[in-house]
Amino acid sequence: MPLALRKDTLNGDPESLHQPLLSSQRSIVNSTSQVAIVGSNVSPIESLDYEIIENEFFKQDWRSRGASQIFQYIFMKWLLCFLIGFIVSLIAFCNNLAVENLAGIKFVITSNMMLERRFLLAFAVFFASNLGLTIFSAVITALIAPAATGSGIPEVKAYLNGVDAPGIFTVRTLFVKIIGSITAVSSSLLIGKAGPMVHTGACVASLLGQGGSKRYGLTWKWLRFFKNDRDRRDLVMCGSAAGIAAAFRAPVGGVLFALEEMTSWWRSALLWRAFFTTAIVAIVLRAMIDVCLSGKCGLFGKGGLIMFDVYSASISYHLAEVPLVFILGVIGGILGSLYNFMLSKVLRVYNFINEKGTICKIVLACVISIFTSFLLFGLPWFASCQPCPLDAAEPCPTIGRSGNFKKFQCPPDHYNDLASLIFNTNDDAIRNLFSRDTNEEFQYSSMFIFFITCFFLSIFSYGVVAPAGLFVPVIVTGASYGRFVGMLVGKRTNLHHGLYAVLGAASFLGGSMRTTVSLCVIMLELTNNLLLLPLIMMVLLVSKTVADAFNANIYDLIMKAKGFPYLETHAEPYMRQLTVGDVVTGPLQMFNGIEKVRNIMFILKTTRHNGFPVIDEPPLSEAPVLSGLILRDHLVTLLKNKVFFPTPRAIGDDVFKKFTSDDFAKKGSNKGEKIEDIQLTEEEMEMFIDLHPFTNTSPYTVVETMSLGKALTLFREVGLRHLLVIPKITGRSPVVGILTRHDFMPEHILGVHPLLIFLCGQGLHIHEYTVPSFMKVLMGRITFGTYENLAMLYPQVTCPSIIDPHMYSG
Amino acid sequence: MPLALRKDTLNGDPESLHQPLLSSQRSIVNSTSQVAIVGSNVSPIESLDYEIIENEFFKQDWRSRGASQIFQYIFMKWLLCFLIGFIVSLIAFCNNLAVENLAGIKFVITSNMMLERRFLLAFAVFFASNLGLTIFSAVITALIAPAATGSGIPEVKAYLNGVDAPGIFTVRTLFVKIIGSITAVSSSLLIGKAGPMVHTGACVASLLGQGGSKRYGLTWKWLRFFKNDRDRRDLVMCGSAAGIAAAFRAPVGGVLFALEEMTSWWRSALLWRAFFTTAIVAIVLRAMIDVCLSGKCGLFGKGGLIMFDVYSASISYHLAEVPLVFILGVIGGILGSLYNFMLSKVLRVYNFINEKGTICKIVLACVISIFTSFLLFGLPWFASCQPCPLDAAEPCPTIGRSGNFKKFQCPPDHYNDLASLIFNTNDDAIRNLFSRDTNEEFQYSSMFIFFITCFFLSIFSYGVVAPAGLFVPVIVTGASYGRFVGMLVGKRTNLHHGLYAVLGAASFLGGSMRTTVSLCVIMLELTNNLLLLPLIMMVLLVSKTVADAFNANIYDLIMKAKGFPYLETHAEPYMRQLTVGDVVTGPLQMFNGIEKVRNIMFILKTTRHNGFPVIDEPPLSEAPVLSGLILRDHLVTLLKNKVFFPTPRAIGDDVFKKFTSDDFAKKGSNKGEKIEDIQLTEEEMEMFIDLHPFTNTSPYTVVETMSLGKALTLFREVGLRHLLVIPKITGRSPVVGILTRHDFMPEHILGVHPLLIFLCGQGLHIHEYTVPSFMKVLMGRITFGTYENLAMLYPQVTCPSIIDPHMYSG
Repeated sequence: MPLALRKDTLNGDPESLHQPLLSSQRSIVNSTSQVAIVGSNVSPIESLDYEIIENEFFKQDWRSRGASQIFQYIFMKWLLCFLIGFIVSLIAFCNNLAVENLAGIKFVITSNMMLERRFLLAFAVFFASNLGLTIFSAVITALIAPAATGSGIPEVKAYLNGVDAPGIFTVRTLFVKIIGSITAVSSSLLIGKAGPMVHTGACVASLLGQGGSKRYGLTWKWLRFFKNDRDRRDLVMCGSAAGIAAAFRAPVGGVLFALEEMTSWWRSALLWRAFFTTAIVAIVLRAMIDVCLSGKCGLFGKGGLIMFDVYSASISYHLAEVPLVFILGVIGGILGSLYNFMLSKVLRVYNFINEKGTICKIVLACVISIFTSFLLFGLPWFASCQPCPLDAAEPCPTIGRSGNFKKFQCPPDHYNDLASLIFNTNDDAIRNLFSRDTNEEFQYSSMFIFFITCFFLSIFSYGVVAPAGLFVPVIVTGASYGRFVGMLVGKRTNLHHGLYAVLGAASFLGGSMRTTVSLCVIMLELTNNLLLLPLIMMVLLVSKTVADAFNANIYDLIMKAKGFPYLETHAEPYMRQLTVGDVVTGPLQMFNGIEKVRNIMFILKTTRHNGFPVIDEPPLSEAPVLSGLILRDHLVTLLKNKVFFPTPRAIGDDVFKKFTSDDFAKKGSNKGEKIEDIQLTEEEMEMFIDLHPFTNTSPYTVVETMSLGKALTLFREVGLRHLLVIPKITGRSPVVGILTRHDFMPEHILGVHPLLIFLCGQGLHIHEYTVPSFMKVLMGRITFGTYENLAMLYPQVTCPSIIDPHMYSG
Repeated sequence: MPLALRKDTLNGDPESLHQPLLSSQRSIVNSTSQVAIVGSNVSPIESLDYEIIENEFFKQDWRSRGASQIFQYIFMKWLLCFLIGFIVSLIAFCNNLAVENLAGIKFVITSNMMLERRFLLAFAVFFASNLGLTIFSAVITALIAPAATGSGIPEVKAYLNGVDAPGIFTVRTLFVKIIGSITAVSSSLLIGKAGPMVHTGACVASLLGQGGSKRYGLTWKWLRFFKNDRDRRDLVMCGSAAGIAAAFRAPVGGVLFALEEMTSWWRSALLWRAFFTTAIVAIVLRAMIDVCLSGKCGLFGKGGLIMFDVYSASISYHLAEVPLVFILGVIGGILGSLYNFMLSKVLRVYNFINEKGTICKIVLACVISIFTSFLLFGLPWFASCQPCPLDAAEPCPTIGRSGNFKKFQCPPDHYNDLASLIFNTNDDAIRNLFSRDTNEEFQYSSMFIFFITCFFLSIFSYGVVAPAGLFVPVIVTGASYGRFVGMLVGKRTNLHHGLYAVLGAASFLGGSMRTTVSLCVIMLELTNNLLLLPLIMMVLLVSKTVADAFNANIYDLIMKAKGFPYLETHAEPYMRQLTVGDVVTGPLQMFNGIEKVRNIMFILKTTRHNGFPVIDEPPLSEAPVLSGLILRDHLVTLLKNKVFFPTPRAIGDDVFKKFTSDDFAKKGSNKGEKIEDIQLTEEEMEMFIDLHPFTNTSPYTVVETMSLGKALTLFREVGLRHLLVIPKITGRSPVVGILTRHDFMPEHILGVHPLLIFLCGQGLHIHEYTVPSFMKVLMGRITFGTYENLAMLYPQVTCPSIIDPHMYSG
């Protein structure tokens, strides 16, 4: 029995199949980008299995399914979308209700004290409640679920691209995200609740897709129907659409945001399901608001949720306004990219602080809260009091509720315009800014101070250890910028200042977030005015174009700062100059079709690979041929079930009796069995397993001379986790390597080919954040010098003089 | 010189490389689906080359480009989008202006004659003008550009999927589409102008992308920048978005329609460019309307374009209305699928008639026009006259222009409600139906007659040989259905009848077109009322769900009836039970890396293949290896330029001097050089060409045992034209076949494996239109009988009991 004999000498045999096939200089393990900052902690990350594993077992399982099971499967997909929409809209409603009441009570109490001119006490109450709420939010976030920090949009976006960060979709994260967001927003920090809503929606979707959480006993068997990452990904996409839809009451905008910004793969069928989910959100929210209109929701007023209804029946604007709006867009784009730049710099500093430990995180949050309290309470004192307008639509000054005219320290029949903006909830500030017929309400100085305050405060607030979104800060900053421009233009325009605020918000959103269609629809749904459409479209296009000249969108910057190995759609031009064989790293581990248990145990324990090629060798076949690819999870399941044979033989049809499809279902993140938990006797270790029925017999393959750019296109478009590299020349082993997403990362490619950076010079498009880690690799490896030397060593590499990533990919 | 020697014996040598490698039983040429009905004629079709051909020449060409060229490339992309938006909006405006004036004058003249009670003369004028306009439209369509027939959306959709139908994007087609659409719509046929606008937009985009039309001398060198199908595809997508945007003045809806219904591949960057295009459309249209508001546009009134502004400041609806709207959606879905079913049946009959010749086509159009004239003029006589309402907002009866109250044959102070709908332009009819505060205006019987008339008339009108859209007929039919339901419900609802008409139109659109998000946005932009959003969403979802249970959407039905080889995104389940080797057909034609001119000429002349694998054999390499894939176009260019060598040798760097990238640019549809045009001397025929610099060295490959479903996923997602099949066992030829889109068509697969239909029985999802052609194949091949026999012959094929195409692909 040559197979068994050969196997016994495996571990020490340098000529064995299991030795690296690639040249020794590249037998390094590709460990770049295997960790990332998830929330506020550094965690190891995995890829998701979106590819359908077409093994015999899978095919037989599907063939055996009856009509009722298939109907159940389809029905469950729609039911889950319904549940996601329903639950997310309930959460969003409760979230808004809680924030409006918490923050509302705080402002009412302090305002009342101010009326009694007990300023110090008012400040003390304001200060203490803000600090208390911030500490509460920071403590639960830091101690219970650090993954809930920030907006969560980068994490969800990375998940939808195929990066599985641990802990982002757990019950703890969901709980902290909801409670932490309520308290953090109520504490007057300049942060939003839209981003956390997206994460909440994705979290709800993921938990439902996994059938609940085992850890807390919250599982329902009837829900556990989606056994692969593919179905769960679709649900998470619907969940993120529901999040935006619920946050802004923008159902169409939600679908488009998920489509334009969040998802990496997209199908018409999915669009439809996302649309269904957000329709449910719209209907449920409407029903809830009907309930609240009767006044049972405390300080949750008529406005309800974020909805800045600036409707006006007859907006007329002419071509003369177009240049002005154009300039507004240009400046908005510059400001937006500056915002992105500064925010990412501040985040890097914060990451250093956060790495020092939990105490540092919480102290940082406290410092920001204290600073915010001083600013919000202190700045209005510098504004001069304004006499109340005689024809004001509402009582002036507003007392006992939030409104346009805050009295603050002013004498009777006067109001403090800066306090009306700054000493208020963000939603009310935006409503004030967007309001019409208020052209005379604000002073230049107040508006300018408010703009500068928002700009910097939101940059410093985002990175604290609490759930924090960016949408609302960006809108409020942009609206104040737009209104300030409107005031400067003054009477030379037909548009009222509220419309300038709307356009300013659009320009700042366009400059920071860089989505176009979805932001346009969200702005329309927010302001409920379709006549603005051409102006908003123009502003968004201009600001995005301008901002794109400087840096990437804010979520991509954050994602890169956090180190997620996000796969871009387009191949960088230098990838077209490299072949697949140039980047693949070893050592490659393979199995025989009928393999010894000891070998499997050894390799699983000594490597962290997730997929292994399966090779059939003589006498099983004429020559060594590739049988397919087997996953680590499946191997662990096989070892756990101990279907071993004392001699190498095929398992036959028994396999369908010994396993159910549940055994091979993909577990939720980090919930799979560990190889370390499996204990085998010495006798079992000497037995054999037939891997064939569990081997994916249709893995995608590329020839080693394939250009790396084209391999990336295949990898990305089809949504793979493993891509097998096969030799060009026959007669060698049937597989020479495996590509994973890490192999396409610039850090890795430049690590393997450090000289690319010299050859490609300035033109090379290296992301800001990849340079430091790359430089390390570079420094450790280069021992010789000149450009000519390097060019001789890498003659096949020639870079285009200037590189535009859109050129090849369109 | 063994290579040359071997070559000389090629043509008669049965063992040669150029003989089919597959078993003889499958050495049939796959000729299914190589022709399709384009417009109204049967034409041969080709695939488009979306894949980037990465050969040495291409790489070197890119490397040599300077910064200015790259900037020019990017600038041109945006400039072309601007031009597309600008030109398409001008065309749309002129189109509307012409239709409003032509049809308006016709109705004003006939109405005036009716006022003078000269009924017979009025009918004669109406009849003659309709017939004249129809004949004009039919004659120019049939004689000048048959490809302009119909809406053109199926053709554009197929183009965006990679199917190149000849003549759809020529100057003639564009001209006929515009003029024919104006005259056909003015002739009171119940057809729309939105579909033709999409085709017009795509046509403008394609012509601009090709740099004009050589045939008419309309070429601009500076425009000829896009030398591949990929860039042109993107432009055509933008053009179709601009078409919808211009037709409905719905810029966001246009982008979404192109995204949801038209395009097969999609990127964020493209979304952005499409959005830019439609923003231009919105701004230009607005400027034009500003011009017309001063009254310089004749009968082109204030409404202008299609824009059914049913704004009402306070629409309130409650949960009680939801069940009613739900039922409206269900019935709308059933009606919509019935409409699709009947329309596709009528189209098949019409295709038989149209095949008989040009005269038959024109006669058919005349018959429909005559029938329409009689119906439109005759039916209102059956309606009873209504007294004018006392508080009507406009004069009653309306005289001298189109309006709500048509006098027709009625006595003074009375109006004919059916005539107000039916004896009117479609746009005005829709405006009447959508209008509010007109609950008492129409009678039950009139509304019902109008609904039935529209339903059937639009089905019979679409297939005539003239540019004809489906959007407006579907909207008018749906609106009359919705208004009829609203009238039946009567006072039991808070919604006014105009809103029911809007919801009815949405339900019928959803039931027929089956898009959701884009229709929702288009309806919102048409009616200019965001408050309707939740109701429209619900209606669309319900009607689409109901209708999907019966058949496919109207464009897909038409596309299949026309025979376009459209590649679906999802793999049919039976494809997972077959391997790539099961469907690949021969004979496979290959070339050596350095090939004799005679062989190339022979193979190019005797086959119609578009791509050929290039093989390097000893002594060029150790063993036969796959060098890559070369395209027919490139070979023809090489032959034309006669860069031959008397002995087999490599071409070296000379190649970059002898050719420019323009030589290898993809020509427009059917404009490439033909092999028949090339004349070579006998001496030249004996010389050699080095194919290496022109060979795409990174073709995508699959192993022959790959499942067909996974190969389809790769083929479709990456957007390929050729997919090479490589052998599993080493030692055979390095390539065993080529897959093209035709090999994935159900007709072909079932032709190669006819027994699949028995094994898979009823569950197999075969499209209605594929069955007949498949049955032919079946009948000619099966000579033996029982199910058991077949199962023994095809043991590897087992079908799931019921097949849901969404199950695997999600």
